[in-house]
Amino acid sequence: MNIAALDTPALAADLDVLERNIDGMATHCDRLGIPLRVHTKTHKVPEIAKLQIAAGSQGITCQKLGEAEVMVDAGIDNILIPYNIVGKPKLKRLTALVKRAKIIVALDSVETAKGISEQAHADTCTVPVVVELDTGSGRCGVQSPQKAQHLARQIVKMPGIDFQGVMTYPSNVRAKPFIEETLDLLSSDGIPVNIISGGGTGSEAASKELGCTETRSGSYVYEGLTRLGNSEMLAPDRCVLRVIVTVVSTPTPERIIIDGGMKTFTSYPPTPYGHIIEHPDAKIYGMSVEHGHVDVSECSHRFKVGEQLSVIPLHQGMTSNLHDELVGIRGNTVETIWQIAGRGRVK
Amino acid sequence: MNIAALDTPALAADLDVLERNIDGMATHCDRLGIPLRVHTKTHKVPEIAKLQIAAGSQGITCQKLGEAEVMVDAGIDNILIPYNIVGKPKLKRLTALVKRAKIIVALDSVETAKGISEQAHADTCTVPVVVELDTGSGRCGVQSPQKAQHLARQIVKMPGIDFQGVMTYPSNVRAKPFIEETLDLLSSDGIPVNIISGGGTGSEAASKELGCTETRSGSYVYEGLTRLGNSEMLAPDRCVLRVIVTVVSTPTPERIIIDGGMKTFTSYPPTPYGHIIEHPDAKIYGMSVEHGHVDVSECSHRFKVGEQLSVIPLHQGMTSNLHDELVGIRGNTVETIWQIAGRGRVK
Repeated sequence: MNIAALDTPALAADLDVLERNIDGMATHCDRLGIPLRVHTKTHKVPEIAKLQIAAGSQGITCQKLGEAEVMVDAGIDNILIPYNIVGKPKLKRLTALVKRAKIIVALDSVETAKGISEQAHADTCTVPVVVELDTGSGRCGVQSPQKAQHLARQIVKMPGIDFQGVMTYPSNVRAKPFIEETLDLLSSDGIPVNIISGGGTGSEAASKELGCTETRSGSYVYEGLTRLGNSEMLAPDRCVLRVIVTVVSTPTPERIIIDGGMKTFTSYPPTPYGHIIEHPDAKIYGMSVEHGHVDVSECSHRFKVGEQLSVIPLHQGMTSNLHDELVGIRGNTVETIWQIAGRGRVK
Repeated sequence: MNIAALDTPALAADLDVLERNIDGMATHCDRLGIPLRVHTKTHKVPEIAKLQIAAGSQGITCQKLGEAEVMVDAGIDNILIPYNIVGKPKLKRLTALVKRAKIIVALDSVETAKGISEQAHADTCTVPVVVELDTGSGRCGVQSPQKAQHLARQIVKMPGIDFQGVMTYPSNVRAKPFIEETLDLLSSDGIPVNIISGGGTGSEAASKELGCTETRSGSYVYEGLTRLGNSEMLAPDRCVLRVIVTVVSTPTPERIIIDGGMKTFTSYPPTPYGHIIEHPDAKIYGMSVEHGHVDVSECSHRFKVGEQLSVIPLHQGMTSNLHDELVGIRGNTVETIWQIAGRGRVK
């Protein structure tokens, strides 16, 4: 099928660029000598995760338990969940999942560790865990090497839970003293460390330098206008995603309206919202919920109702999370349609 | 079930407040003498649409064809779609839907009218349409009474399409000259006008004054922090929605982390993101994709990992669009779980 026959708005991925990005990161990590554990939060598509594993990723990372369930259902069997799993419903789901695949979870408190331990003990399984270090994210994570040591000491005494190491975010050289001191303290206690997980696209070399055993890169898979930055804003050949939209109104010579707004692209993004591949001079200047408002006053082209346009969205991961399907295209041909099976799995 | 047993993050609706809002708007329109055609874009839940119809709404409004399909599937049979339906796949879906229910669509160009006419003629049906007037939205809509007349003259000559009147957005008194001149021009042509559709919560009296035959109010159903404005920010008793979240980390005395971020609440909202009902002094100061970052430095309460909180989201409609289910609660009891069946139907 030609993309011209698609109902719109449709989220599409340029498969040539996708494959190039996946191979590029695999080669990059291979050269650095740092194992890759891709983060799937950006795409949430099991088929893409499998392409990443086929290219050399040793497993995947899922930000939420619900996303991990989707990936295990699709046959993926090695997943890190860098999130505190808290509350009875989730703990039961976690132990069920641990019985089906290799699942490692991160945590940063004795309360979370106790919850996992008690549920795993009751369900006769063992959950491998890593302690999250706050090396500058200002989000979750223990605040000092001493607190990491204190938590690890408690974890190793608990049943049903298996201390495997530490996880850091972000991975940069400023984290080195924190990580080294933590490792020294754990070593002095005789607590073995098998995993030092670093993360973030662009941090691969830093992860290697920090002594990480793996690096969690995610957003590289799609690239996108946000990561490329303004200076490279007009390099759409590096961006995988596009939203194929239709011009539904041409109310004035200066304005056209496309059939995608905040529920298609994401809400309240800063301008420029997205980049229109066919007409870079056309500027999306505003969005309502279901309409995109485009200023075409700088374009010589006369837009017509019914015309299709391809828009590279600004926010790759957030845009993906609004769609149920991803259309895989090669040139102008629809090659496949993938379910974004992890979409909306916030639990 | 008690809400304490819910897995989180969970989107919930306070049913007492929901019923009060629905009854309040029905009474308001009844007193004004303006028929109500609720807009369902805010909630996208067929069961809530049915409550609104039971309270007196003469039908509903759906912003996209896909939402209308969901509502017809649920048994609702009178729907206005205030959106230009463009392109073969959608036109076929439209004629299929017109054969199942009373569907009225808005349009603003001869291209859209022709597309509908040709498909309806081919599929042996008739599509009732209204012409959208741009009375100040700066979005879609014909730009002058003369253009409305010109378009109506062409529509009445086409097969398979039935001119029913006009639609305006927004409805305010400044629109009066535009509407009156349009009606005069159509009258001079002998083109009958059955529908003058006005819209927007808060515009009911203006719609009446403009001579509208119906008013499309939507956001009133949930109310919310955006509509209430800063001055009434602390009036949660008027807000229907809340996201029930769990504290998953208490990394510092000043900061707690909740298990909902941009994929739960919506992306890049302006602060304050949402209002925490139990602890108004706790301020959500940031969000990453799956985490909410809360400043608790002003709170005397000591937050614990595992504690549930109820957050009134800032953006009611956008938040709803991120969730598959809506939990109906009364007090602390879960009374029902509704599918947000219209979520993500951007096509």
